[in-house]
Amino acid sequence: MSDKKHFVTLVGSLRKGSFNAAIAHTLPELAPEGVIVSHLASPGDFPLYNADLQEAGFPAAVLAMAEAIAQADGVIIVTPEYNYSVPGVLKNALDWLSRVSPAPFAGKPVLIQSASPGTIGGARAQYHLRQILVFFDARVMNKPEAMIGQVTDKVKDGVLTDDATRIFLSRQLQAFADFSR
Amino acid sequence: MSDKKHFVTLVGSLRKGSFNAAIAHTLPELAPEGVIVSHLASPGDFPLYNADLQEAGFPAAVLAMAEAIAQADGVIIVTPEYNYSVPGVLKNALDWLSRVSPAPFAGKPVLIQSASPGTIGGARAQYHLRQILVFFDARVMNKPEAMIGQVTDKVKDGVLTDDATRIFLSRQLQAFADFSR
Amino acid sequence: MSDKKHFVTLVGSLRKGSFNAAIAHTLPELAPEGVIVSHLASPGDFPLYNADLQEAGFPAAVLAMAEAIAQADGVIIVTPEYNYSVPGVLKNALDWLSRVSPAPFAGKPVLIQSASPGTIGGARAQYHLRQILVFFDARVMNKPEAMIGQVTDKVKDGVLTDDATRIFLSRQLQAFADFSR
Amino acid sequence: MSDKKHFVTLVGSLRKGSFNAAIAHTLPELAPEGVIVSHLASPGDFPLYNADLQEAGFPAAVLAMAEAIAQADGVIIVTPEYNYSVPGVLKNALDWLSRVSPAPFAGKPVLIQSASPGTIGGARAQYHLRQILVFFDARVMNKPEAMIGQVTDKVKDGVLTDDATRIFLSRQLQAFADFSR
Repeated sequence: MSDKKHFVTLVGSLRKGSFNAAIAHTLPELAPEGVIVSHLASPGDFPLYNADLQEAGFPAAVLAMAEAIAQADGVIIVTPEYNYSVPGVLKNALDWLSRVSPAPFAGKPVLIQSASPGTIGGARAQYHLRQILVFFDARVMNKPEAMIGQVTDKVKDGVLTDDATRIFLSRQLQAFADFSR
Repeated sequence: MSDKKHFVTLVGSLRKGSFNAAIAHTLPELAPEGVIVSHLASPGDFPLYNADLQEAGFPAAVLAMAEAIAQADGVIIVTPEYNYSVPGVLKNALDWLSRVSPAPFAGKPVLIQSASPGTIGGARAQYHLRQILVFFDARVMNKPEAMIGQVTDKVKDGVLTDDATRIFLSRQLQAFADFSR
Repeated sequence: MSDKKHFVTLVGSLRKGSFNAAIAHTLPELAPEGVIVSHLASPGDFPLYNADLQEAGFPAAVLAMAEAIAQADGVIIVTPEYNYSVPGVLKNALDWLSRVSPAPFAGKPVLIQSASPGTIGGARAQYHLRQILVFFDARVMNKPEAMIGQVTDKVKDGVLTDDATRIFLSRQLQAFADFSR
Repeated sequence: MSDKKHFVTLVGSLRKGSFNAAIAHTLPELAPEGVIVSHLASPGDFPLYNADLQEAGFPAAVLAMAEAIAQADGVIIVTPEYNYSVPGVLKNALDWLSRVSPAPFAGKPVLIQSASPGTIGGARAQYHLRQILVFFDARVMNKPEAMIGQVTDKVKDGVLTDDATRIFLSRQLQAFADFSR
């Protein structure tokens, strides 16, 4: 039995120059040996959740993401904080995914990362997200937590360049690989 | 100076048969003398928030809602709880509105109502919403709180029919009118 | 290796006639085969947390509770909600325990139960407690959640008598035993 | 009618060298003209809340604090964050105060300040506290929020010495005076 781990990232911002997307896209090179990180499609193609739409059939993008999550060994949610909480974009994706059966997040290891220009680093979004993930019965890693403040200085040209943060996230990925075993 | 109050409702569900929409649509007949309740357009026409889109110009639906809120004496948010938090649909609307200047919610009286089929009545969504509204600098009424459980039995044909709940919401609207003065 | 599980309860109320204490004291008879439930001493003997006191030496009651938790296979926190959050009594106990080394809650399976006279059943306290337990790196079971409303009718003479609740908690204990394995 | 405002501070830490106590004790000299800041007695003399004790009569320290709050024009809560939430000491004080009638916090303007050695500055405690204060029907100021990180470098010999923070808190006190009018 291989001990390889395959994690997928889910990014909460749709902005092209998103700092959080940049971090997500840097994770593959920070991953320890035996850990592969790839990226879920953007949740930007999901319609706004509407139970009437669901009745007519799940959007293909929702089913594809649910399937990709189900097949992964863990999900890394990388998200900004919008207005002291989870971005509507990300919550909308989760609202859709919560209706898919079998539940893609049930028992699934989840890692949360957030970055913001200020000093709080998205902490408020993370605790809201943790409460949401109780409903999903996800297995969210406790520690270490990644709340990356002053991100404006830490990302350049779509890549996380800050050395201390790179080392920290590399260690966090190792901890997540252990956690998911 | 007239003492009339004009409140607008913002509904967090897009489902046609939504219990929360039914409650919102019953509020005008429950409103005390001198209080007019009308309805904001559905946030279902907002695109998913994307700062790049915003750069290109706010969607007309966003600007129209911001303007309607700015002109109202108070906003009544009536919303289901999705996955232990605020629906992505509602949060997405708030994410857009948070970027409009002048800030439509700043100093604005806000009332929260939520309904759910279970016994919790949407409480978890309400406290997340309250945290979000701190950022907006909204003036959210504390009490009485309206968390309407077992709503399935309380709404019929798109109208709130449960007498006890109608009386309670009528009193809450009176309290909100006082609060907004 | 025995598969027996030994869980300990931590009660958040000091009131003699506490409904939550009654529930905690009924758990041993609801426990499935192979699961033993016993009770931690009351946190009512802890002084209010003060780092200066800690410097002078941990109170014996704190060390005894930390040791009992460390030796248990899991902790069942049974608590009322006070003022929309965790009781100060319980938080004070956790504040003391958080300073003991080695950390008694690290990696420890935790189950949360709460009861209240109203319909919410202590939900607000539970989510605050879950956030707190992230810091402790505890392993808190997600589901099923036990938020017991209208508890006044469900407890008699210090015993949980409501049949539906007894069956539910019995199943929850079984799920917790599985979770802790 | 005088426009003078008299605010009282409530400190969430009992430690003699507490950074938060130091901040509270610096507030009088930062207060704008017409604003007097004095200090409530420490909640360290309150017993752990127990409804049976309450039945026998409220502790004198509780009644004295309730009376001092009732007479003040506003309350400034200055508190550390313990374990991602409000200190048990502070919550215990609030649990006692919540039982006093008439309710001392009802309609009372409240300002929250928190300081911590890390970068988050106590944000997690503040949002829990805000949820608690909904129950109290307190009128909590939204903005500006004071989450003071890296406080270790900002306090010396029991006095807040950091210039930027002093100026910020001075402005916040002015905003609170306006808010309380």
